[in-house]
Amino acid sequence: MNDTIDQARMCSVGLLTTDCYDDLGNFIVQADEAGHDFIVTPISHPTFQRVLNQDKSISEQEQRNWKDRPVFDRKDLVIRSAEWSGRAVGLLASWIQLDSSEPEVRMCSELALKQEMDWACHISLSGLIFPALPKGSLFNTARVINSAVKSLSYTQFLIRVPLTDKRDVQGNLSWKQWNRFRTLTEYNTKIHVALEITSELPSDKQLLDMWLAEPIKAVIVPAEIFVENAKGYPVLSKPHQKFIQHLMDKMKPDMIVTLPPTQIHKKATPQSYSEYINYLNRRLPPLNDVDQFATGYQDFLQAPLQPLMDNLENQTYEVFEKDPIKYQQYEKAVYKALLDRVEHGSDYVTTIMVVGAGRGPLVNCCLRAAEKSERKIHVYALEKNHNAYVTLQNAKADVWGDKVTLVFADMRKWTPPAKCDILVSELLGSFGDNELSPECLDGAQKFIKEGGISIPANYTAFASPLASTRLNNNVAAYKDLEHYETPYVVMFQQVCELAPPKALWSFEHPNTQGDIPADGDPMNNLHNVRYSHAEFTVKHDMIMNGIAGYFESVLYKDVMISIRPKTHSPGMFSWFPIYFPIRTPVQVPKGSTVSLQFWRLTDAKRVWYEWTVTVQGQNGEEMTTLPIHNVGGRSYYVGL
Amino acid sequence: MNDTIDQARMCSVGLLTTDCYDDLGNFIVQADEAGHDFIVTPISHPTFQRVLNQDKSISEQEQRNWKDRPVFDRKDLVIRSAEWSGRAVGLLASWIQLDSSEPEVRMCSELALKQEMDWACHISLSGLIFPALPKGSLFNTARVINSAVKSLSYTQFLIRVPLTDKRDVQGNLSWKQWNRFRTLTEYNTKIHVALEITSELPSDKQLLDMWLAEPIKAVIVPAEIFVENAKGYPVLSKPHQKFIQHLMDKMKPDMIVTLPPTQIHKKATPQSYSEYINYLNRRLPPLNDVDQFATGYQDFLQAPLQPLMDNLENQTYEVFEKDPIKYQQYEKAVYKALLDRVEHGSDYVTTIMVVGAGRGPLVNCCLRAAEKSERKIHVYALEKNHNAYVTLQNAKADVWGDKVTLVFADMRKWTPPAKCDILVSELLGSFGDNELSPECLDGAQKFIKEGGISIPANYTAFASPLASTRLNNNVAAYKDLEHYETPYVVMFQQVCELAPPKALWSFEHPNTQGDIPADGDPMNNLHNVRYSHAEFTVKHDMIMNGIAGYFESVLYKDVMISIRPKTHSPGMFSWFPIYFPIRTPVQVPKGSTVSLQFWRLTDAKRVWYEWTVTVQGQNGEEMTTLPIHNVGGRSYYVGL
Repeated sequence: MNDTIDQARMCSVGLLTTDCYDDLGNFIVQADEAGHDFIVTPISHPTFQRVLNQDKSISEQEQRNWKDRPVFDRKDLVIRSAEWSGRAVGLLASWIQLDSSEPEVRMCSELALKQEMDWACHISLSGLIFPALPKGSLFNTARVINSAVKSLSYTQFLIRVPLTDKRDVQGNLSWKQWNRFRTLTEYNTKIHVALEITSELPSDKQLLDMWLAEPIKAVIVPAEIFVENAKGYPVLSKPHQKFIQHLMDKMKPDMIVTLPPTQIHKKATPQSYSEYINYLNRRLPPLNDVDQFATGYQDFLQAPLQPLMDNLENQTYEVFEKDPIKYQQYEKAVYKALLDRVEHGSDYVTTIMVVGAGRGPLVNCCLRAAEKSERKIHVYALEKNHNAYVTLQNAKADVWGDKVTLVFADMRKWTPPAKCDILVSELLGSFGDNELSPECLDGAQKFIKEGGISIPANYTAFASPLASTRLNNNVAAYKDLEHYETPYVVMFQQVCELAPPKALWSFEHPNTQGDIPADGDPMNNLHNVRYSHAEFTVKHDMIMNGIAGYFESVLYKDVMISIRPKTHSPGMFSWFPIYFPIRTPVQVPKGSTVSLQFWRLTDAKRVWYEWTVTVQGQNGEEMTTLPIHNVGGRSYYVGL
Repeated sequence: MNDTIDQARMCSVGLLTTDCYDDLGNFIVQADEAGHDFIVTPISHPTFQRVLNQDKSISEQEQRNWKDRPVFDRKDLVIRSAEWSGRAVGLLASWIQLDSSEPEVRMCSELALKQEMDWACHISLSGLIFPALPKGSLFNTARVINSAVKSLSYTQFLIRVPLTDKRDVQGNLSWKQWNRFRTLTEYNTKIHVALEITSELPSDKQLLDMWLAEPIKAVIVPAEIFVENAKGYPVLSKPHQKFIQHLMDKMKPDMIVTLPPTQIHKKATPQSYSEYINYLNRRLPPLNDVDQFATGYQDFLQAPLQPLMDNLENQTYEVFEKDPIKYQQYEKAVYKALLDRVEHGSDYVTTIMVVGAGRGPLVNCCLRAAEKSERKIHVYALEKNHNAYVTLQNAKADVWGDKVTLVFADMRKWTPPAKCDILVSELLGSFGDNELSPECLDGAQKFIKEGGISIPANYTAFASPLASTRLNNNVAAYKDLEHYETPYVVMFQQVCELAPPKALWSFEHPNTQGDIPADGDPMNNLHNVRYSHAEFTVKHDMIMNGIAGYFESVLYKDVMISIRPKTHSPGMFSWFPIYFPIRTPVQVPKGSTVSLQFWRLTDAKRVWYEWTVTVQGQNGEEMTTLPIHNVGGRSYYVGL
């Protein structure tokens, strides 16, 4: 066992009891001694249920008085004081029926719920768990909780949701109820999920992955779902282990175990269950390079870079130059191109122009490739950022010497003294063309000799529908249209793709379609306009919150770089995906088809995207059509 | 023929030609002489189509030059100057294919469209008609037009939409294409419909009525749909007449006729078609009392009255006292109650309390009912508005004398000297209970003797899903959440109900459920909380923009007042319906079920509604769930 795991990745473990302890302090001390960080206990005794008066145990007048002034009798309370509230999470009464068909039961349930919440607030309980969403209609439950949580500030509110519904073990009925609830409550950020792991897991992995897009704050692992190992100790099945570790890794939830009322695993002690959870926690898969690089950036919305309008800072270069994979691929591409283009032993000096040389990493790639391939080259290093240009001068003076000619210029305006065989650039954004690589290379392609090449040779944008409560809420927090119509660079973590991404469009370099005069600049930018759509048939009931975007690029022949999940260059961290929000979450019923429409548009000064989403049912019926986003680039554009 | 029709109800009539006249001025003069108010003509000659270069009639370079600088050759223009633009509407080129599968055709179509629009704008053409939405995908058409209309200010933009699609005469395929288009363009208020009447009309009336909810600015009536009457003149079929008159009545569109290329109706002259349209226009059904009263208020959003918090103005009383039906019904109710409760010839003096007497109309009802029934009464007239109270004093001094005792008090606080047999009030709002009649009458019911009655005896709120572009846009114009969560009093005009309204809940008076002590006030207002839902199965593909609300009230036994369409008291104008907006339009596919959830909620100081909408498909799949509106009364409430 590896005990050196980062403490930041350790989840708290709590002990849940549905018994009502008269001496709560003693229970907490015992739980603590058995290694639990907190406890979960009912707030009130079952006696409190008399207020519903379903058994006529109190008089009508008594009930009326209570309804008018819902005050606790201290005898009804399990958590009687604030003494333990920092270590305790309260279970709200399980007899509360907010969607009863009886108006009187609904009303009294609402009053009782608010009474418990009010008390929890008063004593600053750290959390509250609502026992279960009703199986049928849950509109009134949603309405009551949505209003009631408004008064909570410190105390967290969680809804206990089972992973699978007993009536539908292989489906996602339980998720659907939760989904309906949170849609009605409009992704209320004060309402979280306490996901209860069940013995049965759905066999389809996507039904598990969907939970990663939900606001899970706690995971309940009942003792009953443990099995006994050969030695008589409680353990979890491999699929359970894997899913729980996945949750720990992505969401860092509070973990909650229970003690069975009777011994169900021969060798189990009060410590066994929490120890096992801690064991799983310590054995999380180690963070890979990309994860480590991304720490702190998960699901964080970054505005995409605008390298044409803004100059990058030294620190940005510093970070991206450390990518272990990207420059290796560029070197390989230049190497293969040199082998293909120049015979071994030839004296031909291949002219390579690096456009957008930054602080010089691609120049180094070219020089290494030349050395390895034993080909002669001369490199022009073009850079428009005057700050980076100083670093280039240092490199030339100290290392490169005559092999490299420095040029301080914007590639769209420079007139070269000679043409090149190979044009090398690294202008790609997360969506391929979103940092205006097409426009820049259009301007630079007049530098290329006939028969010369560009590295990259082409790039393709990919998109897929995505679910993510966290991303949804991060965008919604801005409360304005602009942020719903702006793409962000995001390291995805608590997300679920509804279907694998599909290609939208590509750009090829050099552009041989006749859009650009052989020795000049394009008349206009109309040839860089794109329109494409992609359809995704979704096999489970799901929700969609936005669109994930990726790119794939051929540098040279079979040398690629990619951030598309299926072909992602292992270990390459220079690009996070791009995220296009949508203005309202979209319900995606089982078997329906999500269509994404995407445009890349341009005018004399700007490039922008517009996008929209439609959902059609199995019979082609129109379920949802969103308005076109970012009309005319009103909310977001990239400046030329 | 009735030539005295209100000029305000007369639609302009224009003449459409698809021919390209070299001498447009001459054509306009002729059209004018034949009684047309304006003309509709192509903007450009078919020669302009060469820019698409589908027949390779121009060189690639010529096309490139045009794409870079799309300028008209004056020979391509039909409307060459601004001279006639006030009298002309332009037809955009019919060869424009914004959703062609060919990127080059799409691009050139977009440039050509913008070029025509730009010219139309420059010469201040009064309107532009886009020839037709594509039959299949229309995403790019929507994207282009949505952006392009931004530059229009004076010039109106219309899309020609046929009433029925030839492929689907009995369905609403044509509407569905329009609906998809306007959803993508987010109800862009610069885009209107030019509805083209077709020979075939759908047999289901709702498919016609749906168009009343659309932003129709013009109706095109082609000569081809006219039939020949016995004398050889062109006339329209009865169903066509009826539908066109309905459109004229509700929407006052510009009417557009055409001249057939060859004589198709024996006796037709160039005047015949427009004369016939003018004839239909003059024969619109006369405005009824309610219509006349509502003139200027159609589809106008009024905040509901808050008579408890605000005192009504004299003018408001003045208007509502003129209702010819309401007081007639109250008189009838009191009359029948007196007959039932007191034997003929008895000396018993029935005590009637009018709570909220205003300027006294209900007092007069009671006095007339007493006279007619030959029963003895004494009336207490209670009023809290000190201004209205002055008018009451005048009436007592001048007319009523000892038969009426005036009381200046709030009915929730007054202690009566004696109890009454009949409590009469008119506290209803458009939704029944929305002006707090329940709370007021709860406070006043202690005035009622045992066995006494309240007039009204009960009232019921009704709701139905509604489509209306105009109401949608009127709410959207406020651009804030509050207005999407506030109900309005609205005289519906350009609306279409998706299904007839259903009852939500009722209030009965006096309240005998034990919520209110016999001689006192209620402890709290919990008994006036309501929660209800209603389901509506919708038989055509439709759109929903909000919820229509109505009330129905039993004053006494079979004497009712109602604003529910099916039972609306004829001629009663005191209440317009209530309209609850929803935050996004909702697609309602054929056969799906719309569920409305409604709550009436209350705290110590306020009463408010919350509501939401879900749509489920035929197999129960969840298509749309809206968030609960007006959570906790955050946007709208009525003060107690």
